[in-house]
Amino acid sequence: MTPAAGEALAAAEVIVGYQTYLDLIPEFLAGKEVIASQMMKEVDRCRKALDLAAEGKTVALVSGGDPGIYAMAGLVFEMAKEQGAAVEIEVIAGIAALNACAARLGAPLMHDFAAISLSDLLTPWEKIEQRLKAAAAADFVVVIYNPKSKKRAEHIVKARAILLAHRAPETPVGIVTAATRENERIVLTTLEKMLESTIDMQTTIIIGNSTTFAWQGFMVTPRGYAAKYAL
Amino acid sequence: MTPAAGEALAAAEVIVGYQTYLDLIPEFLAGKEVIASQMMKEVDRCRKALDLAAEGKTVALVSGGDPGIYAMAGLVFEMAKEQGAAVEIEVIAGIAALNACAARLGAPLMHDFAAISLSDLLTPWEKIEQRLKAAAAADFVVVIYNPKSKKRAEHIVKARAILLAHRAPETPVGIVTAATRENERIVLTTLEKMLESTIDMQTTIIIGNSTTFAWQGFMVTPRGYAAKYAL
Repeated sequence: MTPAAGEALAAAEVIVGYQTYLDLIPEFLAGKEVIASQMMKEVDRCRKALDLAAEGKTVALVSGGDPGIYAMAGLVFEMAKEQGAAVEIEVIAGIAALNACAARLGAPLMHDFAAISLSDLLTPWEKIEQRLKAAAAADFVVVIYNPKSKKRAEHIVKARAILLAHRAPETPVGIVTAATRENERIVLTTLEKMLESTIDMQTTIIIGNSTTFAWQGFMVTPRGYAAKYAL
Repeated sequence: MTPAAGEALAAAEVIVGYQTYLDLIPEFLAGKEVIASQMMKEVDRCRKALDLAAEGKTVALVSGGDPGIYAMAGLVFEMAKEQGAAVEIEVIAGIAALNACAARLGAPLMHDFAAISLSDLLTPWEKIEQRLKAAAAADFVVVIYNPKSKKRAEHIVKARAILLAHRAPETPVGIVTAATRENERIVLTTLEKMLESTIDMQTTIIIGNSTTFAWQGFMVTPRGYAAKYAL
């Protein structure tokens, strides 16, 4: 968490968030009005935060990772626009899963990359597949969000097949679950073997491009210095 | 800066970095051996950091933004591998330009996006163009790093033309320069008009997908809740 996020929490009169995330920041909750909710209630959470802000309260809506990357910030704006809400909104950047996972793996995101969510809850699978094909063909490093849930076990199988049509089986793949948390798991594997590892809802997967290499347990996409300079 | 980055700086015996970035963190430099260098000397900086680490020193190599996204982490690994350096390396994630710029603009990265650098210093322009075309055609939000330098004024003109072949002229475009710094500039414009704004080496540009909208000065790519839930 950045100091800017801490300051926003300290300045808030009300803190709204998913219980699991609020449990990580007990020191910021003391003396505040706290509204916790369960998973999948993000629409309710957001509505509550906007309602309280419209009443004139300073509200902090807590998001895991970076609220601006596949997270709560968008819903706040979608809903505020729908409701014509007259509230001031500020988004405070955080460390997204892609930042944290990349750091834990080494340096896989040194070159152009595409972030793609495999969740078809709000996006047609055909669109997701089209993006996977485009990213695979244009040699982007691919960051996969929401690779698997109980209801969608086959999406990651399809995604891997699309990547394999354009990349070598030995392409490095990093699988990071619960990055920087107590239950963190990091696996460095290959496109060929990636499905042998545990992948769940807390997992982010980074698939290398044609130049990505594994070195001493790290996954590295070279920027290309070695071709230009004597290292 | 995150607490983890602060702890790494506090634990380091030597701090190596680009002078402009070190100027931002004077409180971490007191009592340390400090090795500052100028822009474009990243290979020298990296070599120095690895040499000192090989001597047994604990070295912090400072990077702007997130060292793991188009930044110093990759060069460290490229060089350590070349040299067969026997040093322990840890990457600490930070707020990358894409996180900071997205937050300042609203919520443009709520859906699949591609990050593409327009610098052809280490990458052939043909590859960059191929990626722009793939990202444009597959309706990715596009984050453009290194849009322009004195020597490459025409790349952003070409990039815009590629995007315009697939997206409406009124597609929202966010142009953020020096995000969160004193000289920060934020412009919300459109694909049609984006070249009218100042773009320089400190600028990051975010080009919306087919659903991105502008609302009250913010740029928002909806996740798609409004189609599924009553907001």
